[in-house]
Amino acid sequence: MAVSAAEVKELRQQTGAPMMDVKNALEEAEGDRQKAVEILRKKGAASAQKRGGRSTSEGTVASYVHADGSKGALVELQSETDFVARNEDFQEFARQVAIHVTAMNPQHVSFDEIPEEDVSNERRILEERAKEEGKPDNIVEKIVEGQLRKWAEDIVLLDQKHFNEERYEGKTIEELRTELAAKTGENVRIARFARFEVGQE
Amino acid sequence: MAVSAAEVKELRQQTGAPMMDVKNALEEAEGDRQKAVEILRKKGAASAQKRGGRSTSEGTVASYVHADGSKGALVELQSETDFVARNEDFQEFARQVAIHVTAMNPQHVSFDEIPEEDVSNERRILEERAKEEGKPDNIVEKIVEGQLRKWAEDIVLLDQKHFNEERYEGKTIEELRTELAAKTGENVRIARFARFEVGQE
Repeated sequence: MAVSAAEVKELRQQTGAPMMDVKNALEEAEGDRQKAVEILRKKGAASAQKRGGRSTSEGTVASYVHADGSKGALVELQSETDFVARNEDFQEFARQVAIHVTAMNPQHVSFDEIPEEDVSNERRILEERAKEEGKPDNIVEKIVEGQLRKWAEDIVLLDQKHFNEERYEGKTIEELRTELAAKTGENVRIARFARFEVGQE
Repeated sequence: MAVSAAEVKELRQQTGAPMMDVKNALEEAEGDRQKAVEILRKKGAASAQKRGGRSTSEGTVASYVHADGSKGALVELQSETDFVARNEDFQEFARQVAIHVTAMNPQHVSFDEIPEEDVSNERRILEERAKEEGKPDNIVEKIVEGQLRKWAEDIVLLDQKHFNEERYEGKTIEELRTELAAKTGENVRIARFARFEVGQE
């Protein structure tokens, strides 16, 4: 089935996937946009997993403390080789993540790290609220999924836009990470972070 | 017994205690310097304990990363007032703790923070070992207590000697903390630390 350039463009903007992948997915889904998104998701997960499977045993630790000493963060950024770990772009990204974490206070590196209990709790709360607001049952799920995604963006480091939106063109940390991985040709992984703010134990 | 100003000055520099405390301690110890230090320590510990109840809502976050980026630490040091938090000695101690944590890899701030289960596990292992070595029952407990204290010293930040033993005269982090509390006249509390080493997640 042929798909229009407009359909491809729209879905491309929505998913951020490469154009040919979007075109193929739409064709495979026979124009069903939701199905195409699922195909892209599976494909994305598969290729990330392939790259993610490569072991990241090297890397760097970076820190940042706000000028007034009120808050700061520590980050471990991993690479596959020591060579990339010493790379200037890699070091700068580690520093940027430490600054971002200090400013934006994410709770987890990735969505997968949110405890399942927290996700189902949040889902329950959002469902109840949607129902209380009198939303029809058939769209409650769709509303909740959207709100859940927004909630995750607020607490998941990789899903957050770099807080310096102007300099980083509104890109998320995950997008910047992917760019760095492409540039260095290595799997790049934000292994963990810690963030302290005085009196916020 | 009267003590000379030079003696007071010297001991004051050594202990960092207030001048009148040093003078009184030297008089009470009849000029015996070592005895005077002990009197000051007891006094310091007593008043630090009193201070320990006072709330520490101010403070500073400090970080350190090893020059090669392989490891680093983040520390929150608390004081009672913002005034002390900005004090140079306070800031330097926070930095020293971050460096020490990076170098020495403690597991907990204080003994109280070791999970009860870990303590009883360690005690059981040490008891079994002492018995296997044929130590008489009546001294096993004493041996185990000594070994348990040594084990705690290895993993508890406050019980560790500052890794720069020469510069800090073999003093523990707790001793340095007490000195700082005496010097600033405020409760000083190491609230928490995090330590990352590449690939040691």
